[in-house]
Amino acid sequence: MEFRFASRMTQVKSSVVRDILKLTQGSDIVSFAGGLPAEELFPVQAVREAADRAISAGTSALQYGLTEGYLPLREQLCVRMAQKGMNVKPEEMIITTGSQQAISLLVQVLTEPGDTVLVERPTYLACLQVFELHGLKVIAAESDEHGMIPEDVERLVRLHKPKFMYAVPTFGNPTGNVWSLERRQQLLQICVNHQVPIIEDDPYGELKYDEKAAYPTLFALDQQLGSGVVIYTSTFSKTVAPALRTGWAIGDARVIKMLAVAKQAADLQSSTMDQQILSQLLAHFPLDDHIRVISESYGDRMREMQNLIRAQKIEGLHWIEPKGGMFLWVELPEGLDAEALLRVAVSKGVAFVPGSAFYAYDPKRNTARLNFTHNKGARTVLGVERLAEAIREFTARS
Amino acid sequence: MEFRFASRMTQVKSSVVRDILKLTQGSDIVSFAGGLPAEELFPVQAVREAADRAISAGTSALQYGLTEGYLPLREQLCVRMAQKGMNVKPEEMIITTGSQQAISLLVQVLTEPGDTVLVERPTYLACLQVFELHGLKVIAAESDEHGMIPEDVERLVRLHKPKFMYAVPTFGNPTGNVWSLERRQQLLQICVNHQVPIIEDDPYGELKYDEKAAYPTLFALDQQLGSGVVIYTSTFSKTVAPALRTGWAIGDARVIKMLAVAKQAADLQSSTMDQQILSQLLAHFPLDDHIRVISESYGDRMREMQNLIRAQKIEGLHWIEPKGGMFLWVELPEGLDAEALLRVAVSKGVAFVPGSAFYAYDPKRNTARLNFTHNKGARTVLGVERLAEAIREFTARS
Repeated sequence: MEFRFASRMTQVKSSVVRDILKLTQGSDIVSFAGGLPAEELFPVQAVREAADRAISAGTSALQYGLTEGYLPLREQLCVRMAQKGMNVKPEEMIITTGSQQAISLLVQVLTEPGDTVLVERPTYLACLQVFELHGLKVIAAESDEHGMIPEDVERLVRLHKPKFMYAVPTFGNPTGNVWSLERRQQLLQICVNHQVPIIEDDPYGELKYDEKAAYPTLFALDQQLGSGVVIYTSTFSKTVAPALRTGWAIGDARVIKMLAVAKQAADLQSSTMDQQILSQLLAHFPLDDHIRVISESYGDRMREMQNLIRAQKIEGLHWIEPKGGMFLWVELPEGLDAEALLRVAVSKGVAFVPGSAFYAYDPKRNTARLNFTHNKGARTVLGVERLAEAIREFTARS
Repeated sequence: MEFRFASRMTQVKSSVVRDILKLTQGSDIVSFAGGLPAEELFPVQAVREAADRAISAGTSALQYGLTEGYLPLREQLCVRMAQKGMNVKPEEMIITTGSQQAISLLVQVLTEPGDTVLVERPTYLACLQVFELHGLKVIAAESDEHGMIPEDVERLVRLHKPKFMYAVPTFGNPTGNVWSLERRQQLLQICVNHQVPIIEDDPYGELKYDEKAAYPTLFALDQQLGSGVVIYTSTFSKTVAPALRTGWAIGDARVIKMLAVAKQAADLQSSTMDQQILSQLLAHFPLDDHIRVISESYGDRMREMQNLIRAQKIEGLHWIEPKGGMFLWVELPEGLDAEALLRVAVSKGVAFVPGSAFYAYDPKRNTARLNFTHNKGARTVLGVERLAEAIREFTARS
């Protein structure tokens, strides 16, 4: 049988994230590639107790549930959102299979093939894959350490009238960057003025190394304006565990309703079991204390990796110290192609993601994303040594 | 903010299944509508033990996993598939969020908007919604009690060259019908001759009332031919529990690879937790014994409902006794519109799905799907009484 595949499938270049996840499984390679949380910090006992409570609470934990998600969980999440200045009702929220699904469904609901969408440069690679798969044209606005450049965004919005802007304003992936309050307000205002919906993706916002730092979300700022332009999405993948595949989106009730229609066709609903486990966990486990513990540990790991890289004294290596999240975004010596470097690095036993994967076009080739949350201690030491060796060998060669 | 939704969203008529599931939650209505398994038969203790084993086995149960699915689960499923005459390797299988997601991803991978697909008349309503959402043209072939009519399928295949044929050959939804071996062979041969891929959806195949009856799948028959035209999908939703949202698709490795690309964009992966729970359950729980117990109970419930309906002596009511599955497909008295009847029925406290929901076009309006697995005893008695009362009131009125 010769299958004829849809043209959208043949447009997809490659499946970088998947290949990365494969790299990290069952080999001796030290992987700074995947965005994996630290396994030893998973709240295993709390999940076990929550699972037991969910299964004991009645057979509904094993039955079909609503496409929109388990109502008690949505109610609990509304309380958590309100604590962050985002005031929504359960009907303004939908539970999804990770925030990845929220993005994918938003694309289905808001765009036609051929439409243009606006992203930060660089941006999350798996969202680029979704856009590509749906035949969208991606335009990217420049950014600096304070966030996207308002003038560039305004220019591109006027020129292309994008169907939405996608952004990770707090501890971005891949850069780890956090937008300043001023930039948030400016960028929000531009989108309000031009009526461009914003998809605010916030998987990392709770992983702050400085507990007292406050980064109001675009959604919260927009509620003060009352415009309703922002659709916000987040996930338990980084704060509890990725395996439970539970994310959520909040926003205008009409958008949420459309997302539910699209989700019903996509998979009817996300796991009732996982949603009820999380609902029990939120009721009986001090999640915010846990988030403080992992954030502190991730801050330590970030500084540890920074110090190890510094100690290698590699000329031409630059980065901005992140204030949260899971990634160090490194500029390699001028002219060094990170994709080529990766091949050498893997042969030495270390992996990372070449920065080019995070650009829709015109990539900055001498960049790399290093994850520092999944390894620690001796493994990180070994990984950085191997990486430094690879860079030295590579620069000596070229 | 005025959101502009994609044209695909405005084409979707309504969300019947979702509205049905809402009907069944927290009201006093006896619902014969949703396709809900019997909660009291869920293997609660086995799931609890499996969850405990999965969480105790290591932190991988809480971590990200492969898009294709948890490898040990795929290996176990390959063994189960082989027992049914379907011989595949793990790389010819992908785990999905229920078989609904498998269908949705197959549509993304195999079709462009505007393409034509072929279904049985009537067919599963949530697949019609997927096709509608993706802008597909649906053509439906007539069927009788032995399955789709080969001559009609051949005619439509020649005329429309559909991108695939979608079918539920064993205990179909909504009809409960099972295709004869001869029909299976004929229909398979037509699709092989014309190189039309078949999506064989088999959520109910294991729910046989006659344990000894054998219904070889189209996939198994096709493996004897060696054509590779069939992609088969099934789920644990009806045999273990819907809440775990775990289905799978098997077929040509190139198709599976494309499905993985599409799935990565859709949600990265299905719940690792749920997959590991099912893997532990398969290793330690006699699932086939359990399936025999539920099948026997469902057979009893089917006969109970039949007897109750017969006892009401409603003229012009017809159905064919199903040999498995979860549904009774009822032909109502000539001229009676089941959608109108539903409104009366709900006011009396009973719900069902009007047959029209299962037709892509030109619906047979005097048909209804009754689920008999979710209720039993006094509830079924009450529901059938209310339904009979509604029909009498309705026919008296009109």
